[in-house]
Amino acid sequence: MNRKYIAIYVTVFLLTMFSCAESKQKEAEAETEDQAETPIFEKGNLTSKEKFVGDVYMNLLVPEDSTYTTKSGSVTFEAGSRTNWHYHPSGQILMVTEGTGYHQIEGQVKEIIAKGDVVKVPKNVKHWRGGSKEEAMTHIFVIPNTEMGASVWFEPVSDEEFSE
Amino acid sequence: MNRKYIAIYVTVFLLTMFSCAESKQKEAEAETEDQAETPIFEKGNLTSKEKFVGDVYMNLLVPEDSTYTTKSGSVTFEAGSRTNWHYHPSGQILMVTEGTGYHQIEGQVKEIIAKGDVVKVPKNVKHWRGGSKEEAMTHIFVIPNTEMGASVWFEPVSDEEFSE
Repeated sequence: MNRKYIAIYVTVFLLTMFSCAESKQKEAEAETEDQAETPIFEKGNLTSKEKFVGDVYMNLLVPEDSTYTTKSGSVTFEAGSRTNWHYHPSGQILMVTEGTGYHQIEGQVKEIIAKGDVVKVPKNVKHWRGGSKEEAMTHIFVIPNTEMGASVWFEPVSDEEFSE
Repeated sequence: MNRKYIAIYVTVFLLTMFSCAESKQKEAEAETEDQAETPIFEKGNLTSKEKFVGDVYMNLLVPEDSTYTTKSGSVTFEAGSRTNWHYHPSGQILMVTEGTGYHQIEGQVKEIIAKGDVVKVPKNVKHWRGGSKEEAMTHIFVIPNTEMGASVWFEPVSDEEFSE
């Protein structure tokens, strides 16, 4: 076979493969962005720095009312962000829908919680939660029997408590 | 330019592009399967044919108890499947986490509900829901104040009612 033919063959093959690989990489990047941009619920609004440390977003899906006596929403904690210490007179149910974070009940060891976990927080028990050190976390919260009062807030969770 | 060179150039280019397109399609299929296989919560168990029509899966995340007085779970309706007609003495909150489905309150028009939608079903109102004709649907349900009774079940939703 003529060397010129081989040279053309190799050049065209390499150029086309290179173009194919580059196009695949771009598609993969676009998909990663798409996935990151399509959470189940809108992220909602940045929460008050009086009750949260760092950037925490809240989408209140179900405001309190006398029919359902339930308050529910989707909360997104950026890595390192967290609630202040607080408790709920009627307890609280958490369902983690994305990412990995921390959850701690006062006097107990900090737990790692992740997508698919369901956590029941007992009544009147001080606790906090947040994203993990490296990763964001999104959960749905459900506070039942809001006629008992939804939440009672305390001091921020210090960097030492968060990192412990 | 020699015609043979052109013929080789075109042949190699087309073969490589074809191989690239085929490989991309396989990757896309694999990704679709991956996504379909990682829902937030386990699909759970097939539900009773006495309360549901078709294949409906239930993962009971929060069983009824006297502390939270709340019942909650993740339900997956395959395309065409649905609940029977039923009502809840304390009402119900639905949060659609995946896919597209139908929801209808007795005497009202059938609604299409999809990922990200939140539906409040009033107390003591007969209703049904399910996947759409072509697509599966997964939602979280929250029944508050279960001391009032969780659910009261009636007749199946007919094919005519489903398709209306």
